[in-house]
Amino acid sequence: MATPLFDQHRARLDAAVAACASREYFSAFDESPSPRVYGENAAAEGRAAYDAWLGGSFPLETPGASGTVAGERSPYGVDLGVAYPRVTDVDALLAAAGAGMKAWRDAGPESRTGVCLEILDRLHHRIFELANAVQHTSGQAFVMAFQAGGAHALDRALEAIAYAWAEMSRTPATALWEKPGPKPGSEPLRMSKTFTVVPRGVALVIGCNTFPTWNSWPGLFASLVTGNPVVVKPHPAAVLPLAITVQVCQEVLAEAGFDRNLVTLAVEDPADRLAGALAVRPEVRLIDFTGGNAFGEWLEQNAHQATVFTEKAGVNTVVIDSTSDFAAMCQNLAFSFSLYSGQMCTAPQNLYLPASGIGTDEGTKTPAEVATGIEAALGRLLGDDARAVELLGGVVSPDVLARLESASGHGDVLVASRTVTHPAYADATVRTPTLIGLTSADSDVYESECFGPVAYLISTGGTEESIELFRDTVQRHGAMTAAVYSTSPEVIARMRDAALDAGVALSENLLGAVFVNQSAAFSDFHGTGANPAANASYTDGAYVASRFRVVQSRRHV
Amino acid sequence: MATPLFDQHRARLDAAVAACASREYFSAFDESPSPRVYGENAAAEGRAAYDAWLGGSFPLETPGASGTVAGERSPYGVDLGVAYPRVTDVDALLAAAGAGMKAWRDAGPESRTGVCLEILDRLHHRIFELANAVQHTSGQAFVMAFQAGGAHALDRALEAIAYAWAEMSRTPATALWEKPGPKPGSEPLRMSKTFTVVPRGVALVIGCNTFPTWNSWPGLFASLVTGNPVVVKPHPAAVLPLAITVQVCQEVLAEAGFDRNLVTLAVEDPADRLAGALAVRPEVRLIDFTGGNAFGEWLEQNAHQATVFTEKAGVNTVVIDSTSDFAAMCQNLAFSFSLYSGQMCTAPQNLYLPASGIGTDEGTKTPAEVATGIEAALGRLLGDDARAVELLGGVVSPDVLARLESASGHGDVLVASRTVTHPAYADATVRTPTLIGLTSADSDVYESECFGPVAYLISTGGTEESIELFRDTVQRHGAMTAAVYSTSPEVIARMRDAALDAGVALSENLLGAVFVNQSAAFSDFHGTGANPAANASYTDGAYVASRFRVVQSRRHV
Repeated sequence: MATPLFDQHRARLDAAVAACASREYFSAFDESPSPRVYGENAAAEGRAAYDAWLGGSFPLETPGASGTVAGERSPYGVDLGVAYPRVTDVDALLAAAGAGMKAWRDAGPESRTGVCLEILDRLHHRIFELANAVQHTSGQAFVMAFQAGGAHALDRALEAIAYAWAEMSRTPATALWEKPGPKPGSEPLRMSKTFTVVPRGVALVIGCNTFPTWNSWPGLFASLVTGNPVVVKPHPAAVLPLAITVQVCQEVLAEAGFDRNLVTLAVEDPADRLAGALAVRPEVRLIDFTGGNAFGEWLEQNAHQATVFTEKAGVNTVVIDSTSDFAAMCQNLAFSFSLYSGQMCTAPQNLYLPASGIGTDEGTKTPAEVATGIEAALGRLLGDDARAVELLGGVVSPDVLARLESASGHGDVLVASRTVTHPAYADATVRTPTLIGLTSADSDVYESECFGPVAYLISTGGTEESIELFRDTVQRHGAMTAAVYSTSPEVIARMRDAALDAGVALSENLLGAVFVNQSAAFSDFHGTGANPAANASYTDGAYVASRFRVVQSRRHV
Repeated sequence: MATPLFDQHRARLDAAVAACASREYFSAFDESPSPRVYGENAAAEGRAAYDAWLGGSFPLETPGASGTVAGERSPYGVDLGVAYPRVTDVDALLAAAGAGMKAWRDAGPESRTGVCLEILDRLHHRIFELANAVQHTSGQAFVMAFQAGGAHALDRALEAIAYAWAEMSRTPATALWEKPGPKPGSEPLRMSKTFTVVPRGVALVIGCNTFPTWNSWPGLFASLVTGNPVVVKPHPAAVLPLAITVQVCQEVLAEAGFDRNLVTLAVEDPADRLAGALAVRPEVRLIDFTGGNAFGEWLEQNAHQATVFTEKAGVNTVVIDSTSDFAAMCQNLAFSFSLYSGQMCTAPQNLYLPASGIGTDEGTKTPAEVATGIEAALGRLLGDDARAVELLGGVVSPDVLARLESASGHGDVLVASRTVTHPAYADATVRTPTLIGLTSADSDVYESECFGPVAYLISTGGTEESIELFRDTVQRHGAMTAAVYSTSPEVIARMRDAALDAGVALSENLLGAVFVNQSAAFSDFHGTGANPAANASYTDGAYVASRFRVVQSRRHV
């Protein structure tokens, strides 16, 4: 079969496969929104394309839909007013989703991979439009929406396709099997064998509010490229980025001669509980979910018929023992707290440090002095409102605001949150992070995730206790990230061991422009699947291998 | 770390990895029990080693055990009388199982792989002893017990280790990540990264009666080599082969400096319901099960905390449209029915053929004539009792005998079962297969597995209906194998398509010394995971990838 799209994108695929194996630096999509990279008009055109959607009907037809939903409101204070088809007939949706599966299966891995890589290319051409859509659904600042929601999300999607391609192509399409005869000179047994990748069934992707593309694309493309139709169920507050995604998927599928309903957008009114209804349907054999623990655990326990990949919540931890550069440490931590107002599943929450203080290049620093250092760093980052909003973005939901406002009751307010006025969006809700002082006795507070701009500075009996608290808390409650600051190789070694026990990735002594809440596609795994915060990782073999099966036939030759 | 066992077995591992990728013929363990291969004394010594266990206490200590169980009775009519520690304290067992996990993890993939390959080598040295143990627990004839329970089981174990090794080593242990600076000439960001394979937790392997080694070893070694302690829970009627297995595992682990309780034998009285108690324990994160649908489905639905791999039951199907060699077809089918009295999860059960007959080199053959042809072939294979028992083996359980005896009430008895007298074991229960005539209307009969020497010859309205029945029945009830006989390329093409839809491996026109119920390690996948008979395959990436996680750490350089 001629597979022109595959040939066209082959070099990018090969480079991605090689990067996954070497874990060295690689990126296929430039993260700089600069006009020097994307052209003088790209930003304005993307913004115009985004604006054109507002207040209109998004031109997607979803089988099984009747009526529309239009509930998105930007955290920057603007109603999007985009109407999407509202799914009311799950039978009709799933029937339509499955209709094109066989032709998609029979097209084979190369053809499917070519189509998926072409979709990424088209999404890349709409990166500024997507960035605006991500900004005004998640509340991320524009540059972050461009990077995390655009370029980095594309890299994570490419990574998932690369892993799936490697997995599908490790078994040859045909083989000749020749078993020697029982006696010397006797005829061998010869068989010709055929191996075919077959899909599991319909895949369901359940999106989240904060990272509608970055957290949905890996599962979407891992399932699609392995032959499964994908039903995309966005978070009701973050539909537009995935509506654009589905539009591009359908456009490329149809051009390549496949059923456009291989990717469908399933929008709900929040009261519809559509995700739960879809998740237990026998047709649905794969589920990717990003969101809260309650629904994630419900899926793991009730969607028996499906393989379920979940990313839920945890308590991300920093153990501070000592540092060679106190100011740089405070600056690095302050940035991690501030980035998107801590509304990241990877943002640090629990900072354990000895009540007696930590050794630094500026002498011993008590917990109060560490808080002062972080406060000063926050001041440098966020002191100017116009600059602050480009780092903080907006508070994504009233729940986050409520948690922030109640946090002051949990302990000593070491750094207070400040209200920031957005120079462009007067109705945006923007707050700086708060730092709450606790002791190791306050486990009722720090053993739960407090999603948003809240961090806990937790005084312990010493680094040994800090490490034990880290290991124990993460084993029981999960974490997406962990970090340590120490000048002692022995402490670092003990933290590495504890991180292996707890099953969480560890960042050591980050003092520069790498932050614990950021992971690099092709090199850093996002999540491990080894602690309760997630049962899967972007991207490893386990994330793709069970999304298809190999069916063989054999015959004598 | 010096890994002498890994170096010692490296060539065998590399050859296995290469064979898994090429799917060409490979075997590491000779399947011929001939003295020319294994030496003049090997058979007698193996028999003596087996005999020495009878009536004694097996010298294994299992933490959490008190008292003993000794319930095995050979299908050849001999009580084994071997006493094993009976597990009564699951807490103590699981605590002991987990105690050595960390050192096993820290040893790393090469060291663990070396230990597992050494275990295979030691098991190979005890292959005659194992063959006797498999024969007298499963009822397989000796040569089959030697091959399926010995050499082929070792190949399947090696295959699982090879896949796991490939999966663990696809991510490097360390990497240097260097991201170019934002501007030409600016300093790159450099990070050193470490990637560590970590286990999931305790693995539980639940063995079956008919293939105690072949069906248990892939899961056992896939879990062990990836760092997980393994609790082996044998079928109460087939303990000895796995007791020998665990003894060898413990011996090699202890010699290599690891905790011998990384592999433990958990024997129960059948009333103890030990498997169910273990399966839902939070420490247990991996479960491999071979057995009936009821318990397999219970595991899939209740052991939420674990990744569950099941091989259950299905209805294996043959579609007969036409053949170029009627006698060879009948001979091939008769052999498949007879081998181990059809007590294989891969044995054919449902034969669909047109009521109007099939085209053959001997003219059109009606269903009755096909039955006559198969009966004649069975007569040639099984007419002599002394030869018959070497193919049939013994009936493994009263349940199988009861199903055989009630089968005559399900339809027309086209070929009756005959009682065979075993020349060496007067108390052995040996029966030839029966062939029952049905029509496509008898779905209440042929849609259930009738495990044992029972096959159904089902008359249909034509090959088109046969193929539709095949597709539909397997999609709803599962199958481990399927076969087709046809001289029409178009029929073959339609069967291949139906087999992809049904998710089952297809054998086409087997007329020689390859049988539908046999699969070759490294080339044929056993099970697909794509139909209800099994949710996994020996062995693909999905079978190994989720048995471990990768945990990373990173730091600036």
